[in-house]
Amino acid sequence: MSTIRQDPTTKEWVIVATNRAHRPRDSGTCPFCAGNESRTDPELLRIPDGGEWQVRVIPNGFAALSPADRVGRWEPGPLFREMAGVGHHEVIIDTPVHDRTMAFMSDEEVTVLLRAFRARHQALRADPNVRYILIFKNQGENAGTSLTHPHSQIVATPVAPLHVRQKYRVATGYYDDTGRCLYCDVLEAERAAGVRLVFDSPGFTVFEPFASQVPFETWIMPQHHQASFGQVSDGDITRLAPVVRRTLRALHEALDDPHFNLIIHSAPVEDEDKPYYLWHVQILPRVATIAGFELGSGMRVTSASPEESASVLRELVR
Amino acid sequence: MSTIRQDPTTKEWVIVATNRAHRPRDSGTCPFCAGNESRTDPELLRIPDGGEWQVRVIPNGFAALSPADRVGRWEPGPLFREMAGVGHHEVIIDTPVHDRTMAFMSDEEVTVLLRAFRARHQALRADPNVRYILIFKNQGENAGTSLTHPHSQIVATPVAPLHVRQKYRVATGYYDDTGRCLYCDVLEAERAAGVRLVFDSPGFTVFEPFASQVPFETWIMPQHHQASFGQVSDGDITRLAPVVRRTLRALHEALDDPHFNLIIHSAPVEDEDKPYYLWHVQILPRVATIAGFELGSGMRVTSASPEESASVLRELVR
Repeated sequence: MSTIRQDPTTKEWVIVATNRAHRPRDSGTCPFCAGNESRTDPELLRIPDGGEWQVRVIPNGFAALSPADRVGRWEPGPLFREMAGVGHHEVIIDTPVHDRTMAFMSDEEVTVLLRAFRARHQALRADPNVRYILIFKNQGENAGTSLTHPHSQIVATPVAPLHVRQKYRVATGYYDDTGRCLYCDVLEAERAAGVRLVFDSPGFTVFEPFASQVPFETWIMPQHHQASFGQVSDGDITRLAPVVRRTLRALHEALDDPHFNLIIHSAPVEDEDKPYYLWHVQILPRVATIAGFELGSGMRVTSASPEESASVLRELVR
Repeated sequence: MSTIRQDPTTKEWVIVATNRAHRPRDSGTCPFCAGNESRTDPELLRIPDGGEWQVRVIPNGFAALSPADRVGRWEPGPLFREMAGVGHHEVIIDTPVHDRTMAFMSDEEVTVLLRAFRARHQALRADPNVRYILIFKNQGENAGTSLTHPHSQIVATPVAPLHVRQKYRVATGYYDDTGRCLYCDVLEAERAAGVRLVFDSPGFTVFEPFASQVPFETWIMPQHHQASFGQVSDGDITRLAPVVRRTLRALHEALDDPHFNLIIHSAPVEDEDKPYYLWHVQILPRVATIAGFELGSGMRVTSASPEESASVLRELVR
C-alpha cells in the first residue's frame, strides 16, 4: 500500500505510490477494448448490466490509494507526518470503442458516462474513510495519460487537499460577508460581463474564467446550487451531456485535437450540504508546459486572453 | 504590457501575457552564444565587465512583467480584480558556450553564475514596486524551456504569491509556537533521520525531502539562517557552487540527463529580516507529467520513495 506524507513547510499531502513507477503504455492488445474484458480486474460497475457494455468501471491496476478498514497515522520523526494510502482509485472506461473520445460520442453515450461518474461518486461517498472525491480525465500524453483508449479516473482520498481547503476558506469568507455563494456570484458576474461567455444552455453555462490559468481554460457551471457532483439529478445529467460534448468538440476544433485534463470539482464530502460551493467542470488544455516560475511561485502565466479564446469558441459552437 | 488577474475562487494571481504566445524556439544562430551579443537587447549585467564575458543578463525578450513607475489596480467588474503587469523578467545567460550545462561547469564558473543571480536579486530588490523575487532555471523541453543554450531566469512580481503566503503562514505559526525557524528544524530533522540525506558539506546540506513531490526532488539548504538569497555572502557562494554542481551532476547520472527545474526560494522582500524562513534551492526533475489529479486537487502523486532516491544519489556523489 502507498503512504501519504505531509510536507511540513506547506502542510500539503503527497501520495508516495512506488507501485506507479511501471505503469503500462500502449502496446499490443488494448485491455480496455470490447472483447478484452478478461485482461482487467473484475468490474466494479458495468452499464448496462447485461449484454454489450457501454461503460465499465474497474480498480486502477496501478492504484495510488487502496481501500482499507481504517486510516492509520503515525509520525516517523519530529515534523514528519504520514498515513496509510487508504482510499480508492478507479478507472472508468468511457466506451468500448478504442478511439471514440467524448467530443465524438452521441449525447446518449455521454449521458451514460456521466451516470457512471455519479454512481461511483455516490458509492465511494459511502466509505467513512473518504473525505474528498475527484473525478478527472487525462486525454493525451501531455495531459499525463499512458493509455490511448478513452478513460477517466476517480480518486477518493482520506484527507481534504490544502488547495480545496483554501478554495473553501475563500468561499466561506465570502458567504459570511455577503450571505451568498461565491460560485453562483462568479457565474452571474461572468454572464453579466458576457465577453468570456461561450454559450448558455438550459441548466448550464460555459465560459472562459476571468483569471484563466492556461490558454482556453473552460468552465462548465450548473445554474442552480449544488455542492457536489454526487448530488446531480437525472434531468441535469441529461442536460449536461450535450453541453460537455459541444464544449469538447469546440476545443477539439479550436486547438486541433488538444491534449487536456477535464476535472469535476466537488466540495469535500463533509461539506456537501453547505451553501458555499458549486460543483463545476474545469477543462485545462495542455498546450503550454508548467515551468519553473509556476512550480516555484504557484502563480500561473498564460499567453492567451480569455476574452479572445471565448470569441473563438463562440464561433465554433454555432 | 501584460496584466495580472486575481482568481476570485482561490485569490491566486495569474499573469496574462499575450506577448508570450510566440516565444522563439531553437532555429539557426543561437542568440545566447558568444559572438551573437548584438542579437539580444542591451545587457543589464556582464561578468566580467570588459573582455570576454562569462555571464550576461538581458531583459527577457518575451517578458511576462515589465518595469513601470507605479502599479495600477482596477476592478473591471464585481469579483474581478486586475493590475498592470509591473515587475521584471530577465534572462541570465549562464555561459558563452552553447552546451555547457551547470553540471559540467567548473566550480569557478558556477560561482560567477551564482554571483550574477545575487547581483540581479539585489538590483530588483531596490525597486519599490517589487514584493517577491524568484530565480529559476528550466532545463529541457519537459521543464518548459524553448531554447537549448543554458540560461536561467529571474522574475520580480508586484504581489506575493498565495503559495508563498501559505508557506509563510505555516512558518510563522511554527515560530509563534516554538520560537524556532521551521526550515532550520526541518534541516535538523532530515539530518537526524539520515535516510534521505545525499551529502553534507561545509555550509550546505543536500537531501531528498520527506514529502518529495516528484521522483528525485532535491533540496540544497544553507546551514545557517538567512531568509533570502539576496543576503548570501561571498564565502557562502563559494561554498555553494561545488554543492550545486555535484548535485546536478549526480542527478544527471542517476536520471540520464533529465529535464529539470531548479528554483531558488526566498522570503517575500518585506519579510527578509524576519527569522521565519530559510532560502533554499529546490530541484524538480521532470520525469513524470503533472496530470488531472494533481491539477484538480493540488496534491501530488510520486512514484519514487525519497529514501531510495537518496541512496542512489549518495552512491553517485562519492
